[in-house]
Amino acid sequence: MPHPLYLHLSKYVVVSESEFSDILNFFEKRKLSKKEIIMQAGTKCNSNYFVAQGCLHMYLVNENGNEQTVQFGIENWWITDFMAFQHQKTTDYFIQAVENSEILCIDSKKQEELFKKFPQVESYFRIIYQTAYGAAINRLKYIFTYSKEVIYYKFREQFPDFVARVPQYLVATYLGLTPEYLSQIKHKQQS
Amino acid sequence: MPHPLYLHLSKYVVVSESEFSDILNFFEKRKLSKKEIIMQAGTKCNSNYFVAQGCLHMYLVNENGNEQTVQFGIENWWITDFMAFQHQKTTDYFIQAVENSEILCIDSKKQEELFKKFPQVESYFRIIYQTAYGAAINRLKYIFTYSKEVIYYKFREQFPDFVARVPQYLVATYLGLTPEYLSQIKHKQQS
Repeated sequence: MPHPLYLHLSKYVVVSESEFSDILNFFEKRKLSKKEIIMQAGTKCNSNYFVAQGCLHMYLVNENGNEQTVQFGIENWWITDFMAFQHQKTTDYFIQAVENSEILCIDSKKQEELFKKFPQVESYFRIIYQTAYGAAINRLKYIFTYSKEVIYYKFREQFPDFVARVPQYLVATYLGLTPEYLSQIKHKQQS
Repeated sequence: MPHPLYLHLSKYVVVSESEFSDILNFFEKRKLSKKEIIMQAGTKCNSNYFVAQGCLHMYLVNENGNEQTVQFGIENWWITDFMAFQHQKTTDYFIQAVENSEILCIDSKKQEELFKKFPQVESYFRIIYQTAYGAAINRLKYIFTYSKEVIYYKFREQFPDFVARVPQYLVATYLGLTPEYLSQIKHKQQS
């Protein structure tokens, strides 16, 4: 079975199998247990993470002490604090495994070396980030346009497997709902 | 005076002046009058726009018939519906000049040719999109973490020139406030 990153790269750019073996050497492989934290708020963000298997989320702890998920990463997604990673700065976020997961990690220096040796990997990232940026703007569109109830229904309609897969309190905070509000919506729907 | 795009490219990648003359030929230059619309909801999104001078905004018309700004583009910013541009699809958004502006436009095919001839321009876009994606996530952080009042104060503190420059009803919708709410905040502050 080819590696998930090989399959994902091949969707966008041309990479031979032998090139991929070399590319893979730029990454550190890690297995994470459910709930394991790999990035801490207040520390320097120096890594970008590819989710080969499982699910991670990036969250902050808000002024009321509640966790607020801002990003999920499931299979084939990259997850990090991209702003802090870009500028090698301290992050305000945590990244935690939602499930037992397998990830690839790359630090900033290695990434530069990788792009130099395999420019097509940088092309791949250009496409990935362009799409992710567009998706983030669309997420804002939902938040600004629809009521919280409609946002939840539309999200569930678009990503039924995902909603069934992750804990509902995480889906709630990701959509800007309180978990209590999400319960109300679900209760209303059942009654 | 060097072209704004030359200066912006040179912040991130190496481009000689002679290469830049060639790069510039891939773009169409346009002068826009205030209020001019360059992208219409319901049409295919085939261009990416660099703001050389002035200010544009991307908005949608929500179910109540109100304009909702989701993105601004001032000098050195790229603006388009990146998701629709990536997949050559129909957009839900409008792009309009907020001020008299000068922009560079590039279509998807020309962009591919440009990246092939000048790979460093694709590197530049990888960095630009990575940063923009990170900024969009941080914008969500503000929306989810702070009250609407605090969001406005923080935004004004961070971008005082921008807030002074653009019409306040656009700032309001961009931050997820109603213009009425923004007036209340400002009135409260003055009294």
